[in-house]
Amino acid sequence: METPEVIKVGIIGARAFTARELLRILLRHRRAKVVALQARVDAPEPLADTFPELRGYDLPPIEPIGVDSLPSDMDAVFLCLPHTVGAKFATELDAHPARVFDLSADFRFRDHEVYESVYGVSHPSPELNRKAVYGQPELNRAALVGKRLIAVPGCYPTSVLLALGPLMKKDMIHPRSVIADCKSGVSGAGRTPSDVTHYCNANEGFMAYKVAAHRHQPEIEQELSRLAGESVLVTFVPHLVPMDRGILATCYCRLKESIPEDSLRALFEQFYKDEPFVRVLPRDVLPNTKAVAHSNFCDVNLRIDPRNQGLIVISAIDNLVKGASGQAVQCMNVSFDIPETEGLF
Amino acid sequence: METPEVIKVGIIGARAFTARELLRILLRHRRAKVVALQARVDAPEPLADTFPELRGYDLPPIEPIGVDSLPSDMDAVFLCLPHTVGAKFATELDAHPARVFDLSADFRFRDHEVYESVYGVSHPSPELNRKAVYGQPELNRAALVGKRLIAVPGCYPTSVLLALGPLMKKDMIHPRSVIADCKSGVSGAGRTPSDVTHYCNANEGFMAYKVAAHRHQPEIEQELSRLAGESVLVTFVPHLVPMDRGILATCYCRLKESIPEDSLRALFEQFYKDEPFVRVLPRDVLPNTKAVAHSNFCDVNLRIDPRNQGLIVISAIDNLVKGASGQAVQCMNVSFDIPETEGLF
Amino acid sequence: METPEVIKVGIIGARAFTARELLRILLRHRRAKVVALQARVDAPEPLADTFPELRGYDLPPIEPIGVDSLPSDMDAVFLCLPHTVGAKFATELDAHPARVFDLSADFRFRDHEVYESVYGVSHPSPELNRKAVYGQPELNRAALVGKRLIAVPGCYPTSVLLALGPLMKKDMIHPRSVIADCKSGVSGAGRTPSDVTHYCNANEGFMAYKVAAHRHQPEIEQELSRLAGESVLVTFVPHLVPMDRGILATCYCRLKESIPEDSLRALFEQFYKDEPFVRVLPRDVLPNTKAVAHSNFCDVNLRIDPRNQGLIVISAIDNLVKGASGQAVQCMNVSFDIPETEGLF
Amino acid sequence: METPEVIKVGIIGARAFTARELLRILLRHRRAKVVALQARVDAPEPLADTFPELRGYDLPPIEPIGVDSLPSDMDAVFLCLPHTVGAKFATELDAHPARVFDLSADFRFRDHEVYESVYGVSHPSPELNRKAVYGQPELNRAALVGKRLIAVPGCYPTSVLLALGPLMKKDMIHPRSVIADCKSGVSGAGRTPSDVTHYCNANEGFMAYKVAAHRHQPEIEQELSRLAGESVLVTFVPHLVPMDRGILATCYCRLKESIPEDSLRALFEQFYKDEPFVRVLPRDVLPNTKAVAHSNFCDVNLRIDPRNQGLIVISAIDNLVKGASGQAVQCMNVSFDIPETEGLF
Repeated sequence: METPEVIKVGIIGARAFTARELLRILLRHRRAKVVALQARVDAPEPLADTFPELRGYDLPPIEPIGVDSLPSDMDAVFLCLPHTVGAKFATELDAHPARVFDLSADFRFRDHEVYESVYGVSHPSPELNRKAVYGQPELNRAALVGKRLIAVPGCYPTSVLLALGPLMKKDMIHPRSVIADCKSGVSGAGRTPSDVTHYCNANEGFMAYKVAAHRHQPEIEQELSRLAGESVLVTFVPHLVPMDRGILATCYCRLKESIPEDSLRALFEQFYKDEPFVRVLPRDVLPNTKAVAHSNFCDVNLRIDPRNQGLIVISAIDNLVKGASGQAVQCMNVSFDIPETEGLF
Repeated sequence: METPEVIKVGIIGARAFTARELLRILLRHRRAKVVALQARVDAPEPLADTFPELRGYDLPPIEPIGVDSLPSDMDAVFLCLPHTVGAKFATELDAHPARVFDLSADFRFRDHEVYESVYGVSHPSPELNRKAVYGQPELNRAALVGKRLIAVPGCYPTSVLLALGPLMKKDMIHPRSVIADCKSGVSGAGRTPSDVTHYCNANEGFMAYKVAAHRHQPEIEQELSRLAGESVLVTFVPHLVPMDRGILATCYCRLKESIPEDSLRALFEQFYKDEPFVRVLPRDVLPNTKAVAHSNFCDVNLRIDPRNQGLIVISAIDNLVKGASGQAVQCMNVSFDIPETEGLF
Repeated sequence: METPEVIKVGIIGARAFTARELLRILLRHRRAKVVALQARVDAPEPLADTFPELRGYDLPPIEPIGVDSLPSDMDAVFLCLPHTVGAKFATELDAHPARVFDLSADFRFRDHEVYESVYGVSHPSPELNRKAVYGQPELNRAALVGKRLIAVPGCYPTSVLLALGPLMKKDMIHPRSVIADCKSGVSGAGRTPSDVTHYCNANEGFMAYKVAAHRHQPEIEQELSRLAGESVLVTFVPHLVPMDRGILATCYCRLKESIPEDSLRALFEQFYKDEPFVRVLPRDVLPNTKAVAHSNFCDVNLRIDPRNQGLIVISAIDNLVKGASGQAVQCMNVSFDIPETEGLF
Repeated sequence: METPEVIKVGIIGARAFTARELLRILLRHRRAKVVALQARVDAPEPLADTFPELRGYDLPPIEPIGVDSLPSDMDAVFLCLPHTVGAKFATELDAHPARVFDLSADFRFRDHEVYESVYGVSHPSPELNRKAVYGQPELNRAALVGKRLIAVPGCYPTSVLLALGPLMKKDMIHPRSVIADCKSGVSGAGRTPSDVTHYCNANEGFMAYKVAAHRHQPEIEQELSRLAGESVLVTFVPHLVPMDRGILATCYCRLKESIPEDSLRALFEQFYKDEPFVRVLPRDVLPNTKAVAHSNFCDVNLRIDPRNQGLIVISAIDNLVKGASGQAVQCMNVSFDIPETEGLF
């Protein structure tokens, strides 16, 4: 399939934070144009009613959800929907020629039964699940090209996979030693108001949640295991940070064999040398969510604790960009064979 | 020595955040009265020039530093000073009858040579160091009574020691398995303006710093080793959180023997059952810095990762209260045999 | 009526932010004890389920609302309820000997018809309204003593009235010239989650709302008019600040007669000289919400624009303390003839 | 002079917040390329040492300041410097063919004696000052075309001028009635750490500063007077908001003649109908700094207080974009006759 001069894009779930971020990115994308927005509304309403920051841009209104009412010549659809709902629409879109970039969790698991046990629901479409590909370009690029259904990775998994991927691919880590202590801004909790996202609870508050029980843990394990070629277990503890956006992943693991810190950093630099979005930092610069905010970058650095040879790898991403919408557009660029940084740099 | 009806208190280093916090606490303390404040000023100046929130209270002005000019009948002196300066004044105060509560790091190490290697300076008074006691009441109360020089623990050590103390005392943890991933609000960096504490750098930023290289690491190891009766190594990674105050410590370790999570929580409850300031939380309530802000509480909870038996213990304190000034007053109460919660509950 | 040695206190609406603040204050109050908490719950539940920070204190559980189930020997009831609900319970409590401190808006208007037009509802009890008194001690203390139903003022009105009260009492201001540009932290919006209070909307956002249409405007006008002895109109514009708590009121008005700035400040100092909670600041120190946070203080300062003789009076309060619960306890202290600063200083 | 295909840009003062913002914008500008960065450094150093978020982009290092070492074929120079230093370099650059966009205050005053009285220094170059033009495109576009020295307006003046400009041009406002109550994020205070910008002072703090004494007041008055054709006095009170960026201006004034609110809004819509960066909002949507963050938009809305006919006009900008660097690039676009939104939309 040839890449169209301008990729016509639709977004279903257009009121999500990830949809807003997609729009910000696509407005600067020279090869894409947003032609349809859909969300749970009763009647068409201006996008600016939901996102006042987007007032004044040439963007379509938000229309009620319905695959039938999408333009028939659309090239790409982004699904910014909760789990099970993503799969529902991906299924309906199966007959549509558009490629689907699903930001829900529905197609992230190779084995739909793992999905079912993690999310506690039947998978809406095990068949479609077999056709889906896990959309992390840096670690899975080859598999993406030309694919029609791409599962955009979770935000936490993205941060951990980019931190540990090189080590796993090179089989350097004890597979039972991995701890991922992750910290996320509040936007990771989504747009729906709740006690947790209430300003007066979140502000000046820092806490762990879903300790060793978060749904991203099996997703991380699946991908680390795939890279390592052996079963990897991860103790994953997410935390909520009083800030809008950003994830910092502090990963602890034990090396199978001792190696000097500088050699390890050189290995990371080599591994990511052609990746425009991964910045392996100089020794004395540590990843900071502020340095990647509003960008598709993932910053990485590492330390070896000199006394016990424990390895610490730290990564930072913007959860809404590299952790969601930026990575989704990156996947689209790869899928359509457009320069990967288009709209993102 | 008899406890005076009203303990006359002086503070040297009265412009530090910890001094302000001491003042807030002591204003409510029914058995203490602040009689002298000293800091690096050229001439006496109203306290409200430094801390406008304290305007209107009956508090002395800030005077230039000088042990000689302290009232001779003072009962207790708090030192809110940088390392080496704390020891300098503790030494000068040795002849003074007042008890000294030193919030600097100078007397926290049993072995002054460890101090010297960690802080990279000669210890100002190894002799005095031998007389000092480590002031964490919950884990070291007996040693405090009647002591004249008390080293108030560091903020991070307090959070980690209260999280892991019970396990160490019961010899339940592999001594090389401990990881302490700690997160602190910005006040931990002190009052001096810097790039790191600039609002526009700290806000919406989250980062690790001094990875496996922070001076609190050996302090944590000293105390954990003492409790465990064997040498304990800790990988300690501090992080900066965009908030004023609070520390959350997420501690990872491996149990020597498997034990059900509920039994472990019961063990913590038993261990801390008479401690007014440690709250072992119910299973489904996780520590949150917001729940301990402005209080001397330490909230603790734990989880066992069901797949790999990894233990996660989480604690939360206010770094300026239980992590500094509150604990200092608690030490004073213990030392003078006053009800331990006085001024703090 | 004699003041009991210990005032037995009940709170209806115990899950409101203002209830939590009342509890914090009353826990330190040496003459009061909280004996009953009620809120919209189905069955009694521990207070710590709602306010984890209060775990460990000797406080009753939250019980379902019902005046009948309140202890019959209670001395004071605080109502932390929405408008119309406050009046409903005040009415039910009319037969109960307890004094009622209503934090809702229901009894703030002398004329219940003004209330009805402002709040768009029938007043639940015009009769009771006639017995109520407006509870701002600094400007209305004499009227409070011994009263059985006290309407605790709104947060914004408190900030504006303390800023302009002295000028109004002395008839120094053009009654049509008053502009109150007020800024409040997010806690002013209450505990119910909404789009406005969602962290990701509030953080890094600053906006005006209900411009010249807020319900506190007529309340401000009623009290300023009473003080001035003539009808005062106020243009009132509230704003939302990305912070938990605090109100800053920047008030603009024109003086009837020119007066030097220093004389005006001296007048304020004189006016408030016996008030423990109003701090008239030195010329070069401007009110800051941070300096009054968690306290019952109101900080005030003023400037005269040298070119046009425009007067600017600025005040800062903590909206939850002096703007609500602190002032409510202050009213209780006055009403029961207890030292006014008890529990608050 | 013909516009080059690619405008070669230099920045002096490359470590300022405004320089970083210029770089972000210019990286997306298809007709500009940054060729030189200069700041107070001893030797060339990578830009990422100062701004880690810009690591990985094709940008020159920061070199020591020196007009002589700037490339001779440069087309545009932005000065991100303190007052008096801006003029110093503008003077040195006078012989250079590049156009100069000065973000300092040095050329904002038509009358250099006003500048001297406001800033308390001699004007470094009154002669050059006569050639400079005030760079607010919406209100002064015609004057900009082809100009070689453009004074980029202050952040506060931009917010107030866009709010009141239409009214002043139409002579609708009493010239002594204007009050501008403005609120700015902390980045307005610049990159140098200080007590005011310390996170622990700024966070949860809201205060006024330089009340009726800020240097932007005479700048606002100069431009409003020019637009009105008569002398306008402004009472200007700036406030500091605990957030990174954004200004909200709440402006109060009296109309010379009564006019319905809707007509006034229609007048604003008409006035700004061809302006891509000014969004006159629908009646029920109020400006919010969050909606303009990181953009060159200025959002405007207004209300008439129904009781006293007082007019309230509210505007919101990002102080670093429309209030500084975005407007500077907009000026560059106008000056070089490039589409005005290039790099900014």
